Amino acid sequence: MDASSYDLVVIGSGPAGQKGAIAASKLGKKVAVIDRKEMVGGVCLHTGTIPSKTLREAILYLSGFRERTFYGRDYAVSKEITVADLNFRVQKVLGREVEVIRAQLNRNHVATLCGTARFLDANTLEVESSEGTTRVRGERILIACGTRPAHNPAVPLDGQRIVDSDQLLHGEALPRDLIVVGAGVIGLEYASMISALNIKVTVIEARPAILDFIDREMIESLMFFMRQRGATFRLGEKVLSVGYDEKNRVVASLESGKEVHGDALLYTVGRQTNADLLNLPAAGLAPDDRGRLVVDDYYKTSVPHISAAGDVIGFPALASTSMEQGRLAVCNMFGIACRSRPEFLPYGIYTIPEISTVGMSEQELTEAKIPYEVGQSRYVELAKGQISGVDVGLLKVLFHRQTLKVLGVHAIGEGATEIIHVGQAVLTFGGTIEYFRDNVFNYPTFAEAYKVAGLDGLNKL
Amino acid sequence: MDASSYDLVVIGSGPAGQKGAIAASKLGKKVAVIDRKEMVGGVCLHTGTIPSKTLREAILYLSGFRERTFYGRDYAVSKEITVADLNFRVQKVLGREVEVIRAQLNRNHVATLCGTARFLDANTLEVESSEGTTRVRGERILIACGTRPAHNPAVPLDGQRIVDSDQLLHGEALPRDLIVVGAGVIGLEYASMISALNIKVTVIEARPAILDFIDREMIESLMFFMRQRGATFRLGEKVLSVGYDEKNRVVASLESGKEVHGDALLYTVGRQTNADLLNLPAAGLAPDDRGRLVVDDYYKTSVPHISAAGDVIGFPALASTSMEQGRLAVCNMFGIACRSRPEFLPYGIYTIPEISTVGMSEQELTEAKIPYEVGQSRYVELAKGQISGVDVGLLKVLFHRQTLKVLGVHAIGEGATEIIHVGQAVLTFGGTIEYFRDNVFNYPTFAEAYKVAGLDGLNKL
Repeated sequence: MDASSYDLVVIGSGPAGQKGAIAASKLGKKVAVIDRKEMVGGVCLHTGTIPSKTLREAILYLSGFRERTFYGRDYAVSKEITVADLNFRVQKVLGREVEVIRAQLNRNHVATLCGTARFLDANTLEVESSEGTTRVRGERILIACGTRPAHNPAVPLDGQRIVDSDQLLHGEALPRDLIVVGAGVIGLEYASMISALNIKVTVIEARPAILDFIDREMIESLMFFMRQRGATFRLGEKVLSVGYDEKNRVVASLESGKEVHGDALLYTVGRQTNADLLNLPAAGLAPDDRGRLVVDDYYKTSVPHISAAGDVIGFPALASTSMEQGRLAVCNMFGIACRSRPEFLPYGIYTIPEISTVGMSEQELTEAKIPYEVGQSRYVELAKGQISGVDVGLLKVLFHRQTLKVLGVHAIGEGATEIIHVGQAVLTFGGTIEYFRDNVFNYPTFAEAYKVAGLDGLNKL
Repeated sequence: MDASSYDLVVIGSGPAGQKGAIAASKLGKKVAVIDRKEMVGGVCLHTGTIPSKTLREAILYLSGFRERTFYGRDYAVSKEITVADLNFRVQKVLGREVEVIRAQLNRNHVATLCGTARFLDANTLEVESSEGTTRVRGERILIACGTRPAHNPAVPLDGQRIVDSDQLLHGEALPRDLIVVGAGVIGLEYASMISALNIKVTVIEARPAILDFIDREMIESLMFFMRQRGATFRLGEKVLSVGYDEKNRVVASLESGKEVHGDALLYTVGRQTNADLLNLPAAGLAPDDRGRLVVDDYYKTSVPHISAAGDVIGFPALASTSMEQGRLAVCNMFGIACRSRPEFLPYGIYTIPEISTVGMSEQELTEAKIPYEVGQSRYVELAKGQISGVDVGLLKVLFHRQTLKVLGVHAIGEGATEIIHVGQAVLTFGGTIEYFRDNVFNYPTFAEAYKVAGLDGLNKL
């Protein structure tokens, strides 16, 4: 059996793999992407970003969340929201998105090989599927194999009521109350969504603080809104064991002696990479102690013709950054000068309400002894907030007291992940807070919050 | 009777008046705003921007418009949408917004005088209300009196089925089909909203082209989407008379000999300023032949201590620009150096789907013989589009083929009025299309369209 030969073979068709493959194709290279048949689009599409964000939209809509300011706290479009309702939308979006990705790959003449990849040597991969085993040879190889939920012997997942995020919608009914173990991005996104359905949620996290790379005011606001919907936070608490109690309810026993009981438990602590499935030693590669591949600034591994991008290289492990890594990795592989990582990386956290930030936080500025001032705007004072029934939200622009340069932008509330990019552009171009004061913003918009924040900030000087 | 004396008297409490008054107050000035009791907030709040945008949100929501891609074309949250449903939300928003504006004025110690203003001399105004007549004296005066719908003897409004935009929600039932005369911003916004309710709309416009200051592709897309919902456009058609036919339907007779019949007719051709109500000659002022006040670059009228801002000075007559004019007019009045109008003014048109543009259009660039290329992104290929059920939308970035500088950004689709401000910032800072390629955008967002457009545009070179 002859091995098919490609200029580039990409392992994984998630955001990093897709964008890497397309970038190589645009450079006129012969490219193949390997992924399991049912996984085109990767974890992002099948169990990660896309399903969770679609679920979020479905919950916002079906629960009438945005309409409650008009019609009262108990308003809902559907009186009884079922797992089937939620799954209906997720499956519909997923199906369409698979088509979009397939069409993009086909249009760019990227070959798609179905199966599980394994290194035979540094240039050859074996692809195994139900239809047999084939070999492919890649002049260069991009590893974008992604991650899967990490498991923990203390938390015996049963796929029914003790589940990971991949299994959350597998049950028949929504839980009456939910324990979420792990308050990382994934845990908080699900916890906030479920709490928007007026389901009581208890969040357990071993660390004393939540998402410590995000401005504290944003996180504290999120916790405030979630608590208003009945959420409880147990921080600095370690889960010793999980099982069922005598009433057949799920129980998590904590090191502090507490017990937390609930209808179901969602375990979201950490993810592990799929690098262990690739037979890396055959390629002369070894992952680090957390299973990740270490890369240099050009996304190259220790083997010069093999690069890696996406979740497999670790933080921040966001679809947005993975896409860019995939593209940059490939440009660098083929000797195209590529700008390195942008200085101001945005974070988008799709909780309810959503959070987005770019640049430095108040904590970082204080620590760095940079004298800053804050210009802020609350959604409740914005016409757009009133019109769309959104009464919670805050945009905060941090700027230097002397130079007036924008240092960081932090937003919580509807549209935060969209409008952060206005601040990001001003940050990147080295603009000052005066830009926001002097600019005309469409009215009514959430973006208008920048104008209000600009005036507010400058009035404080 | 002694006249109360102020550093600044503002006539009108719409966007220009409010922001002007607050700016003066922040400078430590004694300020009063005059407006009719029922009109705090101006036309923008009571019959203009706010009600129409709230109506738009209500229609999008109650008609299930955004959900139709999931649940089919005939899906609606409310089977029978009534004028009362729509009015409920409009009144709720309006009430809250009046509170917000009152609170802002109070917090800034701006006196609010209720009544109708009339000049007695260049510094003295008479304020007449049901409670009597008072006089106020202003060292300086800002005229921000706004506009009202223009009337036309050929179109005898009856407030029932032949109405202007102020009267649209006065009826008891929604029309079964609607004739809209005038395809300016207001006419198109209402026509597109009503057509989103699956009500047949016929738009009649005397000019051969619609909104000719906007990029053609955006307008043509809007017309396409409206036609898909059953709208008919009759351009270059003059209305000779409007009345009722033998079946008691409204009929508009056109100069071309056509007759257009409908259940109701909305007349939105032009607005006239309220300057005629101010007894301007007493102040030594005269409006131009269209009733507008002419101002210089500093918003000063021919009488040095009297400035004007907002709709009364004419184009573009948007709440967003009026606010900025009010603020700048007042800064200039009190000798504060103020940056002049921003170079890149955005337009936000709240049709369904919404349109927003900034910078030059393809037509303007072609006319100016500037060699440009287009980078574009269609919403249907964006994950955010899929997730939120939005399948129509287009972002177009125009940039210089040689310098790569961004020249114009044009968007149609959900969130267009928000994300345009990302492109506006890049335009203002003189950025290139490469910014969009090299930047990381949150995923999934509509703002991500910039990344796709950046890659698309650069691939064309």
